[in-house]
Amino acid sequence: MDHFLFATEWLNTDSAPTLAGFRGRVLAVEVFQMLCPGCVLHGLPQAQRLAQTFMSGDFAVIGLHSVFEHHDANSRESLAAFLHEWRIRFPVAIDAPGEGAMPRTMEAWALQGTPSLVLFDRQGEMRARHFGQVPDLALGAEIMSLIREDPPS
Amino acid sequence: MDHFLFATEWLNTDSAPTLAGFRGRVLAVEVFQMLCPGCVLHGLPQAQRLAQTFMSGDFAVIGLHSVFEHHDANSRESLAAFLHEWRIRFPVAIDAPGEGAMPRTMEAWALQGTPSLVLFDRQGEMRARHFGQVPDLALGAEIMSLIREDPPS
Amino acid sequence: MDHFLFATEWLNTDSAPTLAGFRGRVLAVEVFQMLCPGCVLHGLPQAQRLAQTFMSGDFAVIGLHSVFEHHDANSRESLAAFLHEWRIRFPVAIDAPGEGAMPRTMEAWALQGTPSLVLFDRQGEMRARHFGQVPDLALGAEIMSLIREDPPS
Amino acid sequence: MDHFLFATEWLNTDSAPTLAGFRGRVLAVEVFQMLCPGCVLHGLPQAQRLAQTFMSGDFAVIGLHSVFEHHDANSRESLAAFLHEWRIRFPVAIDAPGEGAMPRTMEAWALQGTPSLVLFDRQGEMRARHFGQVPDLALGAEIMSLIREDPPS
Repeated sequence: MDHFLFATEWLNTDSAPTLAGFRGRVLAVEVFQMLCPGCVLHGLPQAQRLAQTFMSGDFAVIGLHSVFEHHDANSRESLAAFLHEWRIRFPVAIDAPGEGAMPRTMEAWALQGTPSLVLFDRQGEMRARHFGQVPDLALGAEIMSLIREDPPS
Repeated sequence: MDHFLFATEWLNTDSAPTLAGFRGRVLAVEVFQMLCPGCVLHGLPQAQRLAQTFMSGDFAVIGLHSVFEHHDANSRESLAAFLHEWRIRFPVAIDAPGEGAMPRTMEAWALQGTPSLVLFDRQGEMRARHFGQVPDLALGAEIMSLIREDPPS
Repeated sequence: MDHFLFATEWLNTDSAPTLAGFRGRVLAVEVFQMLCPGCVLHGLPQAQRLAQTFMSGDFAVIGLHSVFEHHDANSRESLAAFLHEWRIRFPVAIDAPGEGAMPRTMEAWALQGTPSLVLFDRQGEMRARHFGQVPDLALGAEIMSLIREDPPS
Repeated sequence: MDHFLFATEWLNTDSAPTLAGFRGRVLAVEVFQMLCPGCVLHGLPQAQRLAQTFMSGDFAVIGLHSVFEHHDANSRESLAAFLHEWRIRFPVAIDAPGEGAMPRTMEAWALQGTPSLVLFDRQGEMRARHFGQVPDLALGAEIMSLIREDPPS
C-alpha cells in the first residue's frame, strides 16, 4: 500500500520531498505541534538525537507539523521561528488541511495525536506508529532492526 | 525610585495589575519569550514552582512577555495558546513596544535578555535581576529573606 | 529541650562536634545510609547543595550515618570509601547502636527512616524532620526563615 | 579467540554461568564497582533497562564487580546488600583477584576502568568495550545489529 504525505509547504529544505523519495532508506516522521509540551520536551529532542545517531545512507528523519488546535497561533512564521530557536535542522512539512478538524496526513495515517513517531521501512511500508513517549533503547533497536532487513531486490 | 511595568495587554487576569498594586508583598516577575528554549525549559517551570511554594499573602508571581525577535511569530493568539497548553496560570503582561528593538519595560529595567527573573521587595524596590538560570535553593532563600524583612511602617 | 547526637565516630573532621557547638547557627543534619538509593540520589546531593548555598557563619550541614539494616555491609571502611568517591566533604557522624534495631540518635529523634533531613534553629531547637524528598525551593525558604530569626539574646 | 570471565563467586544466581553458556545469544557485561558514582548513576540503570528491553532468547545481561580500589569496603556482604537495595536482579560475578591491582578479568579484557559495558556476539566474540557513558539510542541500535547477525551455522 502506498502512503502519501500531504504538505502545503516545507521548511528547512529547498526541495519538496516525497515519501517515495526516501525509498531504500528507513524513514522516521516526527509528527508534532509546536505548542504541544510533550512534543517540545520529548518527541522533538528524540528526533534530533535520531538524526545524529544513524547514518544518512540508511536512515532519514523529517518532521510533520500537524496542527489540530489553536490554528491561528501556528502560522508558518511562528513555526519557522520555533525551528530556528530550538535548533531543529531536519526538513519539516506543514500538514495540509483536512476535511474536518484533523489535518489531512494525520487523518490518512490514522494518528491519535501528537507527538507521534511514524516509521517506514526501506520499501516504504508503514511499520510503526508510536503515540507519546518511546524509550530510546527500544527505539534504537527497532530502527536498527528495520535497517538490517534485506534491501529491496 | 518608582518602577513601572508597561503592558499593552494582560492575559490570565481580568484586571490590569500595576506594580504599585503588589506593594506589601514580594513580587517576582518572570520575563520571557515563548520561543526562547531557556524560558520554556527552566524559567517558566521555576516560576510555576514559585507560585506553588509561597503564600499569596506574602508573595506573588507574574509573567512579562518581552519579545525582541521574531515579532510576527509572537502574536497575542500564539501567546494565549502557549499559556493554555503549558498550564501557566499566573497573570502575564505583554510588554509594550519600545523605541528600538527592545520592548519598553525590558529597556526601562535594563535587562540583558530572556529568561530574566526580577524581584521586588514589599516596598516596591527592585532587589534582583537574574539573567539565565538560578538554582532553586538559592532563589527560595533569597525570596524568603525579602519576605522576612520588616513590613513598611 | 536539649537534643543530643550520639556518635561512635566522626569522619571528615578531626574534632568530635556536638550539637551544642553549632548553637548560634542553623544546623541541617542529613540522616542517611550509604546503601539507601533515595539517600544517594536525592538526600546527599541536596545536602551538598546546601553546603554550597548558605554562608558558614549562619549555617552548617553535617551527615549522620544511621544504619538499621545490612549492618555488616556498612563498615566504617565502606563509609569512608563511599564519602571519598561521592565527594562528600562535610562532617559525618556514625550513629551509636541503640537498644533495638534502630541506632540510638535515630530513635531519640523519632525518625521514620532514611533519608531524613533534620533542622535545628540557632537556639538548638529541633524545628523540622523531613522524611523523603523535599523540594529545593521550599527548603531554601525554610532555612532562610530560620536564619532570619532573631539571634539568642 | 576464546574469552573467559574469571569469577570467585556469583550473586543473583544459583548456578555459575560461563561465557560459553551464553553462546547463541548476544551478551552484555556491565563491569562496575558499587562505590563508583558513574556506575550507580548511569551504567547500572542502563543495564537494568537493557534487561527489560531485549528478549531473553536473543540477549542476556550480567554484571561483573571488578574492584580495583577500596578493597576492604567492597566485601561480598556489601555487594549483596547493594544489589538488594538497588533492585538489581541480573546475575553478578565477583571478579577474581589479579596478579597486580587490577582484578583478573578486567585485566584480561584490557578494560580502562568502570563503568565499562562489554558486548559479545552470538558466537562469543568480543565486539565492543564501552568505557563511560553510551547513549541509549546508539546502544539499542548496536545490540540489535548484533542480534540480527546470522546465527552460527
